[in-house]
Amino acid sequence: MPAAPTPGPLRKNARATDPGAGVLRVALLGCGVVGTQVAQRLIEHADDLGARAGARLELAGIAVRDAARPRDGVGTVVPRELLTEDAESLVDGADLVVELMGGIEPARALIHRAIAGGASVVTANKALLAAHGPELFEAADAAGVDLSFEAAVAGAIPIVRPVRESLAGDHVRRVLGIVNGTTNYVLDQMTTHGLDLEEALKEAQTLGYAEADPTADVEGHDAAAKAAILASLAFHTRVSLAQVACEGISGVTAADVAAAQQTGHVVKLLAIAEQTAEGVSARVHPALVPVAHPLAAVRGAFNAVFVEADDAGPLMFYGQGAGGRPTSSAVLGDLVSAARDRLVGGRGPRESAYASLPVLPHDAAVTRYQVRLVVADRPGVLAQVAQVLADHGVSIDTVRQAPDEPYAVGVAEGTAVLLLTTHAAREASLAATVTALRGIEPVREITSVLRVEGA
Amino acid sequence: MPAAPTPGPLRKNARATDPGAGVLRVALLGCGVVGTQVAQRLIEHADDLGARAGARLELAGIAVRDAARPRDGVGTVVPRELLTEDAESLVDGADLVVELMGGIEPARALIHRAIAGGASVVTANKALLAAHGPELFEAADAAGVDLSFEAAVAGAIPIVRPVRESLAGDHVRRVLGIVNGTTNYVLDQMTTHGLDLEEALKEAQTLGYAEADPTADVEGHDAAAKAAILASLAFHTRVSLAQVACEGISGVTAADVAAAQQTGHVVKLLAIAEQTAEGVSARVHPALVPVAHPLAAVRGAFNAVFVEADDAGPLMFYGQGAGGRPTSSAVLGDLVSAARDRLVGGRGPRESAYASLPVLPHDAAVTRYQVRLVVADRPGVLAQVAQVLADHGVSIDTVRQAPDEPYAVGVAEGTAVLLLTTHAAREASLAATVTALRGIEPVREITSVLRVEGA
Repeated sequence: MPAAPTPGPLRKNARATDPGAGVLRVALLGCGVVGTQVAQRLIEHADDLGARAGARLELAGIAVRDAARPRDGVGTVVPRELLTEDAESLVDGADLVVELMGGIEPARALIHRAIAGGASVVTANKALLAAHGPELFEAADAAGVDLSFEAAVAGAIPIVRPVRESLAGDHVRRVLGIVNGTTNYVLDQMTTHGLDLEEALKEAQTLGYAEADPTADVEGHDAAAKAAILASLAFHTRVSLAQVACEGISGVTAADVAAAQQTGHVVKLLAIAEQTAEGVSARVHPALVPVAHPLAAVRGAFNAVFVEADDAGPLMFYGQGAGGRPTSSAVLGDLVSAARDRLVGGRGPRESAYASLPVLPHDAAVTRYQVRLVVADRPGVLAQVAQVLADHGVSIDTVRQAPDEPYAVGVAEGTAVLLLTTHAAREASLAATVTALRGIEPVREITSVLRVEGA
Repeated sequence: MPAAPTPGPLRKNARATDPGAGVLRVALLGCGVVGTQVAQRLIEHADDLGARAGARLELAGIAVRDAARPRDGVGTVVPRELLTEDAESLVDGADLVVELMGGIEPARALIHRAIAGGASVVTANKALLAAHGPELFEAADAAGVDLSFEAAVAGAIPIVRPVRESLAGDHVRRVLGIVNGTTNYVLDQMTTHGLDLEEALKEAQTLGYAEADPTADVEGHDAAAKAAILASLAFHTRVSLAQVACEGISGVTAADVAAAQQTGHVVKLLAIAEQTAEGVSARVHPALVPVAHPLAAVRGAFNAVFVEADDAGPLMFYGQGAGGRPTSSAVLGDLVSAARDRLVGGRGPRESAYASLPVLPHDAAVTRYQVRLVVADRPGVLAQVAQVLADHGVSIDTVRQAPDEPYAVGVAEGTAVLLLTTHAAREASLAATVTALRGIEPVREITSVLRVEGA
């Protein structure tokens, strides 16, 4: 605990070496679910945070749009006088700025203002980083301040720091992340209780795991921003949100989940970042994960990030990916680091984009597929289907035709369900194969095409 | 990649801002399994490591006891001229020292020498840190250099950095770690294939997972050093090796594993660090882990560390805990960080022991127990046994008497096996209970007493 802190902020380039030397002024932007928790911790755990940071972290104020609105914890733990509608003045007087407003503006302008004023910044704003990361990192670098963002990916789980720092001496080849708790909860309910998507989503909304408008989660946009951030860190290459191929879970049916189970898989929405000989890619889509894979055991609203590195081999990071308290843990960890860097005149890691590897187009991904199709139930059909795949250079791994399995029950008289799993194939070849399959007579319907990952 | 590095080391307090500004000289102490991999990476990945560190990391030399001995990779990737038997001179000329010799001396003296000379140090030496950590951290702090040790706990798994830095704004309450791959492999084989300890250990030795003398692993000494390090980091309190209660797996039988399975558990050797209202404790012992707990799924020689923090909630870090390549990944991550700190004049986190919480005696731990005992098979015996527990304030959760289950088959005529699981009780109360049970007539044998964790 800092002994007798002297008043007055330690500004940029301070070189205090005495851990009790002073006070750092913290500006908090936003007082939502996460902001409230961060504010409370800064007040209630002031002694511990001060001892760990090396200086007292004084909550200078909290910028909100409407200071008069009642908020949990404000007026009790957090003095109401700390609320202000003047974010700019608050930022101008701060050593450390914590941005938890979300959205692009005014978050972006305020972070630029903070950096220009010599403050270090901690943010949880994945959308902002995925859209404007490079300009913000460059500004922070030029000003010699930290810009940290552990809370932007997978909430409480330390993943940004491990990828940026712990694996800085290794080569990451692939990242497979369950980084959206809402969709993992929905898919887990579908798997465990046989619910369909709508039922599971309704339940998630009732329990507060999904928002009233769940589009950003269900359509994979939230996961895509995180995929862009993870790919950029993992491959030392800028990968923007626009470069992430994105497909959500809205097309996943109860029959898809049942078919996955019959072949020893569970369906997960994955954020994938991959490096191949040609370049790097990032994508988000539902995928079949083998039940023995560590990601398959990630239940409910939990998150996990599986990393494959050349030397480290497989690693997995597991925990809570959202919520006020878990996210505040990540924010405060960054804040303590930024404070320490400030006190010794150090710097956290800068943006590392030196590798500048080519970012591959969306259809360049190479993966395995499971294709479910309804075909005429007569001799020779399988041969015809197999020939179409062979013509497109797509090799079949397994074929399953089991009329009693749940996903196959109830198809029209005279038809049967085929479940094909392919060996690794290019996305473009598979797309051409599916188009060709649609064109042959015995194929009545391509019911689903799902990628298989983590095998 | 650094453009045209200029020769000459950047010594202590260098303030280079141009990432291509120079060269940092790396001294490697030890050229065993890990050292060889680190040396090869420094040479083969020099461009990447240089770009990430901000300066070229030049392998200045490798200190070994016998420079003439043939070694894999030396003479091919690693020039033999780099080997030297003069560790002291090598250290004296280095900016960064990587200690991979293991053991206490001369590692300790060489690290002191490096620190005194202004070099930052990376070590994987858990035994040294557990025994002499405080004096080394104090020396590093006084000299203003980094002393980092990610590779000392759980090999490739980033766990030291997450606990030290990512969780610096949180309160860790408990750490449960599978931190010894040899014993996890052995226990997993016993679980999966019903082997007894000797058979499984022999197999582990054949596959290279266990050493010819497996004492340090089997008796828990290796895990105890890691428990001391994790407890110290997690609780901001110095916990020494002598303060870690340590019991290995040599007493675990095939029947114990079978009994665990019957009650929905697997047996794991856990390194546990815990904070309660009275203080902190660290211990290593075999424990029953519920099959649904994430640690139960950690198979083979893999490691995992499960952390419970107030705000983050449960977190798990999973990966390879040993081996040359995985460990080299952790070493090189630390090395890149230490190099960056040096270049910008920053510092990694110092030792944080400000909390100085009381370290509790070994018998203060509170946990649940599973007790297996052979009793006379007649009416009234269970009541007698239950009374002994009640007299010691130990409350029974479940009782199981199932003569057909594997652990119960083959006991003497007229006797039966009881499997009791208790609610949480103090270690001291349980010990007294066991002594009292031994003293009553119907109890023929206390076959095993195992703790239950993670429930």
